[in-house]
Amino acid sequence: MEVKVVSNILKANELIAEANRQVFERAGIYALNLMSSPGAGKTTLLEALAEELGSEIRMAVIEGDIATAADSERIAAKGVPTVQINTGGGCHLEAGMVARALDSLPLSELDLIIIENVGNLVCPADFSLGEQDKALILSVSEGSDKPKKYPAMFRRSSFLVINKIDLLDRCNFNLEKAVSDARSIQPNLDIFPLSATKREGLAPLIDWLRQKVESIKGRR
Amino acid sequence: MEVKVVSNILKANELIAEANRQVFERAGIYALNLMSSPGAGKTTLLEALAEELGSEIRMAVIEGDIATAADSERIAAKGVPTVQINTGGGCHLEAGMVARALDSLPLSELDLIIIENVGNLVCPADFSLGEQDKALILSVSEGSDKPKKYPAMFRRSSFLVINKIDLLDRCNFNLEKAVSDARSIQPNLDIFPLSATKREGLAPLIDWLRQKVESIKGRR
Repeated sequence: MEVKVVSNILKANELIAEANRQVFERAGIYALNLMSSPGAGKTTLLEALAEELGSEIRMAVIEGDIATAADSERIAAKGVPTVQINTGGGCHLEAGMVARALDSLPLSELDLIIIENVGNLVCPADFSLGEQDKALILSVSEGSDKPKKYPAMFRRSSFLVINKIDLLDRCNFNLEKAVSDARSIQPNLDIFPLSATKREGLAPLIDWLRQKVESIKGRR
Repeated sequence: MEVKVVSNILKANELIAEANRQVFERAGIYALNLMSSPGAGKTTLLEALAEELGSEIRMAVIEGDIATAADSERIAAKGVPTVQINTGGGCHLEAGMVARALDSLPLSELDLIIIENVGNLVCPADFSLGEQDKALILSVSEGSDKPKKYPAMFRRSSFLVINKIDLLDRCNFNLEKAVSDARSIQPNLDIFPLSATKREGLAPLIDWLRQKVESIKGRR
């Protein structure tokens, strides 16, 4: 009985996600669903990308949080169009929340929308928002045992950022193990070790995003 | 409709939690529900407590994880009775899972059971396990903005461990702000800044646990 209800909720979500997917497709926008534990560095990475992408790629951000507009204020301060969603307790974003947020964005002037999900290494994996790709941040301070302990997130992601590599000397984090465990779950995972705070190691990730944006622009 | 189902699930959980509560009460056991984001240091804190409490307080641990028995192996290596629960995808522990785990523990020989919840700063707050108290770990590397962004967890906790204070010099963490934001949500919150990895600052927390255990023993 419980399972049936969950399955109906997921089916309703998938219908709206499909509508979002068509909005992105028609506008020629690459949409990315960015997930992680609380405090892994999603917003700091977005601040860094806002600075590095400059005018080359026209980015907008949809911020998902349980409460506060703190994150969208940080992103808007970088001159990036931003919409804040507050779930009011909800542990993940759903497609309907994103659909409403899209009404507030200048879609015809955008190449890239990054949707920052609620900080949670479990629940967001189950809910498509209509994105082309999901991506995951794991921070060095969380420990290298996370891929095996939270496999669904890794399985559904197209790339993994290993953030806070500036703390590698102070945390008991086995980079080689994290990479090999993550790839044992998702063999095609692209992995970008970097420090968003220090703005170090961002270039390969920016190249990845640029290629995705270009390939979608090519299809316009 | 959805709300009604969630409310029924919560009600069923509360009935089993009440049964667990009576089991703890009859056995004179203090039970603590320990929650945090993934990688905040729950298992490392339990390892430290296992060493520091020694034979003085007879502790057992119930480990909640989506997958793997990695955490219970770490705790069992300290000579502490341990039961591993794998939720198989579930984002929080429920009272029924704990009820089954209790069958495997020598209740008459215990003073303290710490239940390590699934790493998640959102969902575990809604599900009582029958514990006397909930407690929360926030790690310095997660950032001091977390109390305002994830208020439910802080509201329901009796104490807050601020872990990884050995990283204060390397993380942009405002300890004063974290403490005052957390107390604005839960004014009676006891707060213990410490480093579980370095075994620093544990004494006030151990005193707190000792007093709880003694007061429950006194009621036997």
